[in-house]
Amino acid sequence: MKVLTYIQGGSTNVGILKANGTEVVPVNYLGCEAQDMAGFLEAMTPEKQEKLEKNTELMDGIPLESVKMVSPILYPRQDVICLGINYFAHAEESARFHKEAFGGERPQPIYFSKRVNRAVGDGEPVDGHFDIVDSLDYEAELAVIIGKDAKNVSEEDAFDYVFGYTILNDISARNLQTLHKQWYFGKSLDDFTPIGPWIVTKNEFENPPALAIRSYVNGELRQDSNTSLMINGVAKVISQLSQGMTLQTGTIIAMGTPAGVGMGFEPPKFLKAGDVVTCEIEGIGKLTNEIK
Amino acid sequence: MKVLTYIQGGSTNVGILKANGTEVVPVNYLGCEAQDMAGFLEAMTPEKQEKLEKNTELMDGIPLESVKMVSPILYPRQDVICLGINYFAHAEESARFHKEAFGGERPQPIYFSKRVNRAVGDGEPVDGHFDIVDSLDYEAELAVIIGKDAKNVSEEDAFDYVFGYTILNDISARNLQTLHKQWYFGKSLDDFTPIGPWIVTKNEFENPPALAIRSYVNGELRQDSNTSLMINGVAKVISQLSQGMTLQTGTIIAMGTPAGVGMGFEPPKFLKAGDVVTCEIEGIGKLTNEIK
Repeated sequence: MKVLTYIQGGSTNVGILKANGTEVVPVNYLGCEAQDMAGFLEAMTPEKQEKLEKNTELMDGIPLESVKMVSPILYPRQDVICLGINYFAHAEESARFHKEAFGGERPQPIYFSKRVNRAVGDGEPVDGHFDIVDSLDYEAELAVIIGKDAKNVSEEDAFDYVFGYTILNDISARNLQTLHKQWYFGKSLDDFTPIGPWIVTKNEFENPPALAIRSYVNGELRQDSNTSLMINGVAKVISQLSQGMTLQTGTIIAMGTPAGVGMGFEPPKFLKAGDVVTCEIEGIGKLTNEIK
Repeated sequence: MKVLTYIQGGSTNVGILKANGTEVVPVNYLGCEAQDMAGFLEAMTPEKQEKLEKNTELMDGIPLESVKMVSPILYPRQDVICLGINYFAHAEESARFHKEAFGGERPQPIYFSKRVNRAVGDGEPVDGHFDIVDSLDYEAELAVIIGKDAKNVSEEDAFDYVFGYTILNDISARNLQTLHKQWYFGKSLDDFTPIGPWIVTKNEFENPPALAIRSYVNGELRQDSNTSLMINGVAKVISQLSQGMTLQTGTIIAMGTPAGVGMGFEPPKFLKAGDVVTCEIEGIGKLTNEIK
């Protein structure tokens, strides 16, 4: 099931995409009064979700092309939790680019965060902030959406806490990321977090999901890997974080990016105004944004 | 003016402390319908604030001791933005403790963030998470509360965007902070962010504020400095961050901690269950928490 957020007649709504892929059914029609994705996730249980999915196909929907789709989690309630250097080939290219900032042994996951004032949706432009950024980069990532509060969760039980998955482009200003030592600021500029196009519920995937993940810049294939190649998987990350930090419903965890980002090329291929970046994950879809 | 959050009869309210220090006037009595501090900050303008402050003294308040005070920003809408290594003497002690993690040249501020599911208030206990933490530390910090959305702000104008100040204890698990390279997880465990006891509006201080800042563990003085000794001041930080990242109303910026934290001693003096930590800033007050 694909869950999305859209704007129609000035109001923001959560909807379910019908199997035909061309119509959306507002969750309000389906007996769920949620005003946004956070409210929807809080209202969901596995039983309600199953019923909702069935009823969606029985309803007449609204043509998808008649509404404006936005990022499924438009205003995340908390910063996005991110993993750094979570694919081996990306570890190598990062250390080559900047040994001090990205090199070294990594027996444990690297966690950092990204502030998102407003998540950018599929098809929306991204401000490159070129007045302060000279090395803008893309990072296609699988994003995990937490469906119920997770505290002290074992790896075995971890997928019970996952609602679904989406695509996240962890746009990064390499100059700011290294200048300020910790990565936070260079990852958190306005527009630096496209998320979308929708959330696909976990029942459409295996645990753990083994999905082709790719990115393209102006149609040129740049990243081409598989989420099965992560160094630290979804279950380990949910379990580890939840030992000390309650992962609240709606938490977004971006699972790191594979090799092929701009800083990995010699010379680096950083983004410039007018470039179009597409991130693609098998079974989810595509997330495309133009840099302005 | 001191603005606080309290619970009475099961409902959470924002109130103003009267000059006598023993009575609180709910902002609802004063014509402000805000349900929480974020709503209050959004409703405030300098003119409204001046009127509110005058009217507070004309009203009968509720005895402070009859209500339960909690952290003024109980559920921060976004993660707290923090500065690392922002006092010279603390830079020295940190590098001595762990050269790889904390050493090196720092021409620019270090920014990182701290997830806060629920801010701990004055007098509330703090879970030390001793099952996964072997080096629990305290960090007394001046916290800046942003009063209106700040974007592309100059250093000259920066204080126009400050609503006020409070005390923040940036509790840190040194083992997790270094194990995961980026500092985020070791700073973000549940209970690791006491904030309080209240917000004091900026009109009670000079720009920039030059205030004695201290911490005590079980009554023993540990940190003893002045906020005028920060390497990067409030105006620079607001201006720099806002060039790329809109600082939304209610944003909390923790300005870093002076020398005297546990890891600065030889051998280190880390916190254990039963320890009582007090952070104190001149003109604001004290923030005391017991480790459990």
